[in-house]
Amino acid sequence: MRWQDGGWLEAAPPPAPQECPVAIVIDGMSQAVLMATPRDLRDFALGFALTEGLIAAPGDVLDYEQAEVQTDGFPAREARLWLRPGLAAGLAERRRSMVGPVGCGLCGVDSIAAALPPVVPVASDWTMPPLDVARAMDALAGGQVLRRETPAIHGAAFWDGSRAITREDVGRHNALDKLAGALAQAGADAGQGAIVMSSRLSVDLVQKAARIGAPVLIGASAPTGLALQWAERAGITLIARARGANFDLYTHPRRIAGNRGPDV
Amino acid sequence: MRWQDGGWLEAAPPPAPQECPVAIVIDGMSQAVLMATPRDLRDFALGFALTEGLIAAPGDVLDYEQAEVQTDGFPAREARLWLRPGLAAGLAERRRSMVGPVGCGLCGVDSIAAALPPVVPVASDWTMPPLDVARAMDALAGGQVLRRETPAIHGAAFWDGSRAITREDVGRHNALDKLAGALAQAGADAGQGAIVMSSRLSVDLVQKAARIGAPVLIGASAPTGLALQWAERAGITLIARARGANFDLYTHPRRIAGNRGPDV
Repeated sequence: MRWQDGGWLEAAPPPAPQECPVAIVIDGMSQAVLMATPRDLRDFALGFALTEGLIAAPGDVLDYEQAEVQTDGFPAREARLWLRPGLAAGLAERRRSMVGPVGCGLCGVDSIAAALPPVVPVASDWTMPPLDVARAMDALAGGQVLRRETPAIHGAAFWDGSRAITREDVGRHNALDKLAGALAQAGADAGQGAIVMSSRLSVDLVQKAARIGAPVLIGASAPTGLALQWAERAGITLIARARGANFDLYTHPRRIAGNRGPDV
Repeated sequence: MRWQDGGWLEAAPPPAPQECPVAIVIDGMSQAVLMATPRDLRDFALGFALTEGLIAAPGDVLDYEQAEVQTDGFPAREARLWLRPGLAAGLAERRRSMVGPVGCGLCGVDSIAAALPPVVPVASDWTMPPLDVARAMDALAGGQVLRRETPAIHGAAFWDGSRAITREDVGRHNALDKLAGALAQAGADAGQGAIVMSSRLSVDLVQKAARIGAPVLIGASAPTGLALQWAERAGITLIARARGANFDLYTHPRRIAGNRGPDV
């Protein structure tokens, strides 16, 4: 459902980018699991191994294979590199000081199952009127003091229907963590409001919102496909592309007052 | 230096957002190191511990302290939580299945030193004329087939002066890893061209570019402060805010032909 110019439309939003857990497996040992778009995975595995210093040269790799696995109903991929004999021994050590794979929202995860842990659905019946989405976005913008100095900063705000608490960071995941901590310190109930992000909505943001029991997650930009599936499962009302007074409503619409769509 | 309307300007770019390694330390044990903006770190540590399931409730935390540490000349922070007695024992176990901190470009790093590993400066003397920055950006855009379907996709391209290889992903770090792998498979010399990113330039992208020996890194959006420092140290020519025919040139300008600035 799309809220546009003050009313609901049945509009198909643009397709969401694909995101799925990809395990980089070297000589049978999982090195990392990253949220990635499942294309060019051979390039990905080889490039990851190179830029993370897991191998010294492309010639270290003898063979590659790829597998699709299922985790709790979600498709995931394994990208498997096989190295020249004798090279794998150093990996366990190197791995402890590994730097850099992400931007994907996972960290230190070495199994696909851990990337998509069980979720307790958010039960809160908090609601907000559609016109409040723009108010919440405005409140986020108003609270982004760092963004006034430098545009490349993300913000996360908690909107309780009348005002917002905002936190900022270069990383959207960090901004949300800071917000979660600020809410905890203020003794605020995250179940009674909406989280508003200046960014795209990736699955890890949905997971973090679910973990603190926030029922509504609003993003200025697009969701990933997996974020939508996860919001569905986590009982979270997900709104994306909130720009001006317009937005796309994807999951659990019952919390947006006046929405006549079914609550799937 | 800013290239604008066909000529060089001495213009101060907008301030870069701050980014530094922040170690989340619980009962004296480092849980993760994240690249983050060093503000509201108490909120960050508490929120991270909550959204990652390291603690069950804010009341689990008895005390907080913060320290500034130096790593190889770069400032870093430790955000230290002290828990109620008996809770820390479960952390080592939980940590193995930890999900989600990032978007910061680190993964599985548990020490600040590992977040900023030594770098071998890129020595390549490859150069490009300033007008080629726009051509390289156009080549990236032309190669972004996924982005035509869905706008929320990042791209990384390698521009050799005449054409580009492009890879895409929801994560900018993944797009760059895919590109690194594609170059390796094609037997291309990453030292003879520029990497072009559709995104902001964070320090981990600079680190990855340095690892494969790429001398020029161009981004459509802003750099972080640490990315600039790291590009300086890694011998990488960093160009940001490449939009239309204009761009900001920050470090090692000698590789942009016709630039009269000193090579700092």
